[in-house]
Amino acid sequence: MMLHNVYFWLKDPADADARECLIAGVESLRAIEVIRSLTIGHPAPTEDREVVDSSFDVSEHLVFDSAADQKIYQNHPVHRAFVERCEGLWDRVLVYDSQEV
Amino acid sequence: MMLHNVYFWLKDPADADARECLIAGVESLRAIEVIRSLTIGHPAPTEDREVVDSSFDVSEHLVFDSAADQKIYQNHPVHRAFVERCEGLWDRVLVYDSQEV
Repeated sequence: MMLHNVYFWLKDPADADARECLIAGVESLRAIEVIRSLTIGHPAPTEDREVVDSSFDVSEHLVFDSAADQKIYQNHPVHRAFVERCEGLWDRVLVYDSQEV
Repeated sequence: MMLHNVYFWLKDPADADARECLIAGVESLRAIEVIRSLTIGHPAPTEDREVVDSSFDVSEHLVFDSAADQKIYQNHPVHRAFVERCEGLWDRVLVYDSQEV
Protein backbone atom coordinates (compact mmCIF):
# COMPACT_ATOMS: atom_id res chain seq x y z
CA MET A 1 0.00 0.00 0.00
CA MET A 2 1.22 3.47 -0.86
CA LEU A 3 -0.07 6.75 0.55
CA HIS A 4 0.14 9.96 -1.46
CA ASN A 5 -0.58 12.96 0.79
CA VAL A 6 -0.71 16.38 -0.85
CA TYR A 7 -1.04 19.80 0.80
CA PHE A 8 -2.06 22.92 -1.12
CA TRP A 9 -1.60 26.55 -0.16
CA LEU A 10 -3.89 28.80 -2.23
CA LYS A 11 -2.63 32.03 -3.76
CA ASP A 12 -5.52 33.70 -1.97
CA PRO A 13 -6.66 31.69 1.06
CA ALA A 14 -9.66 34.04 1.43
CA ASP A 15 -10.93 33.23 -2.07
CA ALA A 16 -13.78 30.78 -1.44
CA ASP A 17 -14.34 30.27 -5.19
CA ALA A 18 -10.73 29.22 -5.67
CA ARG A 19 -11.05 26.77 -2.79
CA GLU A 20 -14.24 25.27 -4.24
CA CYS A 21 -12.66 25.10 -7.69
CA LEU A 22 -9.64 23.25 -6.28
CA ILE A 23 -11.85 20.84 -4.32
CA ALA A 24 -13.94 20.16 -7.45
CA GLY A 25 -10.71 19.55 -9.35
CA VAL A 26 -9.51 17.02 -6.78
CA GLU A 27 -12.95 15.36 -6.89
CA SER A 28 -12.49 14.85 -10.64
CA LEU A 29 -9.51 12.59 -9.89
CA ARG A 30 -11.89 9.88 -8.62
CA ALA A 31 -12.27 8.82 -12.27
CA ILE A 32 -8.72 7.40 -12.21
CA GLU A 33 -9.00 3.62 -11.85
CA VAL A 34 -5.79 2.98 -9.91
CA ILE A 35 -6.93 5.11 -6.95
CA ARG A 36 -7.98 2.86 -4.04
CA SER A 37 -9.29 5.73 -1.92
CA LEU A 38 -9.39 9.52 -2.10
CA THR A 39 -10.12 11.85 0.80
CA ILE A 40 -10.17 15.64 0.58
CA GLY A 41 -9.46 17.68 3.66
CA HIS A 42 -8.87 21.08 5.19
CA PRO A 43 -7.09 21.89 8.49
CA ALA A 44 -8.78 20.06 11.35
CA PRO A 45 -9.72 21.93 14.52
CA THR A 46 -7.08 20.16 16.62
CA GLU A 47 -5.02 21.79 19.34
CA ASP A 48 -2.45 24.40 18.37
CA ARG A 49 0.91 22.69 18.86
CA GLU A 50 4.38 23.65 17.67
CA VAL A 51 4.72 20.42 15.64
CA VAL A 52 1.40 20.85 13.81
CA ASP A 53 1.43 22.67 10.47
CA SER A 54 -2.12 23.90 9.93
CA SER A 55 -1.18 26.60 7.41
CA PHE A 56 -2.36 24.67 4.32
CA ASP A 57 -5.74 25.35 2.71
CA VAL A 58 -6.72 22.04 1.12
CA SER A 59 -5.30 18.53 1.41
CA GLU A 60 -5.67 15.44 -0.74
CA HIS A 61 -5.07 11.92 0.53
CA LEU A 62 -4.78 9.11 -1.97
CA VAL A 63 -4.15 5.41 -1.46
CA PHE A 64 -2.63 3.25 -4.18
CA ASP A 65 -1.69 -0.41 -4.26
CA SER A 66 1.86 0.46 -5.29
CA ALA A 67 4.27 3.19 -6.32
CA ALA A 68 3.82 1.92 -9.90
CA ASP A 69 0.11 2.76 -9.69
CA GLN A 70 0.99 6.21 -8.39
CA LYS A 71 3.07 6.71 -11.53
CA ILE A 72 0.12 5.67 -13.70
CA TYR A 73 -1.95 8.26 -11.80
CA GLN A 74 0.66 11.02 -12.32
CA ASN A 75 0.63 10.45 -16.07
CA HIS A 76 -3.13 9.89 -16.38
CA PRO A 77 -4.91 12.40 -18.67
CA VAL A 78 -7.47 13.17 -15.92
CA HIS A 79 -4.65 14.08 -13.52
CA ARG A 80 -2.82 16.12 -16.15
CA ALA A 81 -6.05 18.00 -16.97
CA PHE A 82 -6.57 18.71 -13.25
CA VAL A 83 -3.06 20.17 -12.88
CA GLU A 84 -3.45 22.28 -16.01
CA ARG A 85 -6.86 23.59 -14.92
CA CYS A 86 -6.04 24.25 -11.27
CA GLU A 87 -2.32 24.99 -10.90
CA GLY A 88 -2.99 28.71 -11.20
CA LEU A 89 -4.94 28.52 -7.94
CA TRP A 90 -2.15 27.42 -5.65
CA ASP A 91 0.95 29.18 -4.48
CA ARG A 92 2.59 26.05 -3.12
CA VAL A 93 2.04 22.32 -3.15
CA LEU A 94 3.84 19.80 -0.97
CA VAL A 95 3.74 16.03 -1.43
CA TYR A 96 4.67 13.18 0.90
CA ASP A 97 4.73 9.68 -0.59
CA SER A 98 4.80 6.87 1.96
CA GLN A 99 5.18 3.18 1.32
CA GLU A 100 3.66 0.97 4.00
CA VAL A 101 6.41 -0.77 6.00
CA MET B 1 -13.40 11.64 9.34
CA MET B 2 -10.12 13.15 10.46
CA LEU B 3 -6.66 12.27 9.18
CA HIS B 4 -3.59 12.67 11.38
CA ASN B 5 -0.42 12.37 9.27
CA VAL B 6 2.90 12.49 11.10
CA TYR B 7 6.42 12.60 9.63
CA PHE B 8 9.52 11.77 11.67
CA TRP B 9 13.13 12.64 10.94
CA LEU B 10 15.49 10.46 13.01
CA LYS B 11 18.48 11.95 14.79
CA ASP B 12 20.54 9.35 12.96
CA PRO B 13 18.81 8.18 9.76
CA ALA B 14 21.47 5.45 9.36
CA ASP B 15 20.62 3.91 12.75
CA ALA B 16 18.50 0.87 11.82
CA ASP B 17 17.87 0.05 15.49
CA ALA B 18 16.43 3.51 16.11
CA ARG B 19 14.18 3.13 13.09
CA GLU B 20 12.93 -0.27 14.27
CA CYS B 21 12.43 1.07 17.78
CA LEU B 22 10.35 3.97 16.44
CA ILE B 23 8.28 1.66 14.23
CA ALA B 24 7.66 -0.66 17.20
CA GLY B 25 6.62 2.37 19.23
CA VAL B 26 4.12 3.45 16.59
CA GLU B 27 2.82 -0.13 16.42
CA SER B 28 2.07 0.06 20.15
CA LEU B 29 -0.45 2.84 19.43
CA ARG B 30 -2.83 0.28 17.90
CA ALA B 31 -4.04 -0.40 21.43
CA ILE B 32 -5.80 3.00 21.50
CA GLU B 33 -9.50 2.37 20.90
CA VAL B 34 -10.37 5.61 19.09
CA ILE B 35 -7.98 4.86 16.20
CA ARG B 36 -9.97 3.77 13.12
CA SER B 37 -6.86 2.86 11.11
CA LEU B 38 -3.11 3.12 11.50
CA THR B 39 -0.57 2.79 8.70
CA ILE B 40 3.19 3.10 9.15
CA GLY B 41 5.33 4.19 6.22
CA HIS B 42 8.71 5.21 4.92
CA PRO B 43 9.49 7.24 1.79
CA ALA B 44 8.01 5.53 -1.27
CA PRO B 45 10.13 4.96 -4.38
CA THR B 46 8.23 7.52 -6.43
CA GLU B 47 9.78 9.89 -8.93
CA ASP B 48 12.06 12.65 -7.69
CA ARG B 49 10.04 15.85 -8.09
CA GLU B 50 10.58 19.32 -6.66
CA VAL B 51 7.24 19.23 -4.82
CA VAL B 52 7.89 15.87 -3.14
CA ASP B 53 9.53 15.88 0.29
CA SER B 54 11.08 12.44 0.73
CA SER B 55 13.53 13.50 3.43
CA PHE B 56 11.57 11.97 6.34
CA ASP B 57 12.50 8.58 7.80
CA VAL B 58 9.23 7.18 9.16
CA SER B 59 5.62 8.27 8.73
CA GLU B 60 2.48 7.48 10.68
CA HIS B 61 -1.03 7.80 9.25
CA LEU B 62 -3.97 7.68 11.59
CA VAL B 63 -7.67 7.97 10.89
CA PHE B 64 -10.12 9.11 13.56
CA ASP B 65 -13.86 9.68 13.47
CA SER B 66 -13.41 13.23 14.74
CA ALA B 67 -10.99 15.83 16.06
CA ALA B 68 -12.39 15.04 19.52
CA ASP B 69 -11.17 11.45 19.16
CA GLN B 70 -7.77 12.75 18.11
CA LYS B 71 -7.65 14.68 21.39
CA ILE B 72 -8.49 11.51 23.34
CA TYR B 73 -5.62 9.82 21.47
CA GLN B 74 -3.17 12.66 22.29
CA ASN B 75 -3.92 12.35 25.98
CA HIS B 76 -4.12 8.54 26.08
CA PRO B 77 -1.57 6.89 28.41
CA VAL B 78 -0.39 4.58 25.58
CA HIS B 79 0.35 7.62 23.38
CA ARG B 80 2.05 9.47 26.22
CA ALA B 81 4.21 6.40 26.96
CA PHE B 82 5.16 6.18 23.28
CA VAL B 83 6.28 9.81 23.17
CA GLU B 84 8.24 9.45 26.40
CA ARG B 85 9.94 6.25 25.21
CA CYS B 86 10.71 7.35 21.65
CA GLU B 87 11.10 11.14 21.52
CA GLY B 88 14.84 10.82 22.01
CA LEU B 89 15.02 9.05 18.64
CA TRP B 90 13.77 11.85 16.45
CA ASP B 91 15.27 15.16 15.54
CA ARG B 92 12.06 16.57 14.09
CA VAL B 93 8.41 15.67 13.87
CA LEU B 94 5.84 17.34 11.66
CA VAL B 95 2.07 16.84 11.89
CA TYR B 96 -0.74 17.62 9.45
CA ASP B 97 -4.30 17.26 10.74
CA SER B 98 -6.96 17.19 8.04
CA GLN B 99 -10.70 17.16 8.48
CA GLU B 100 -12.62 15.59 5.60
CA VAL B 101 -14.52 18.27 3.66
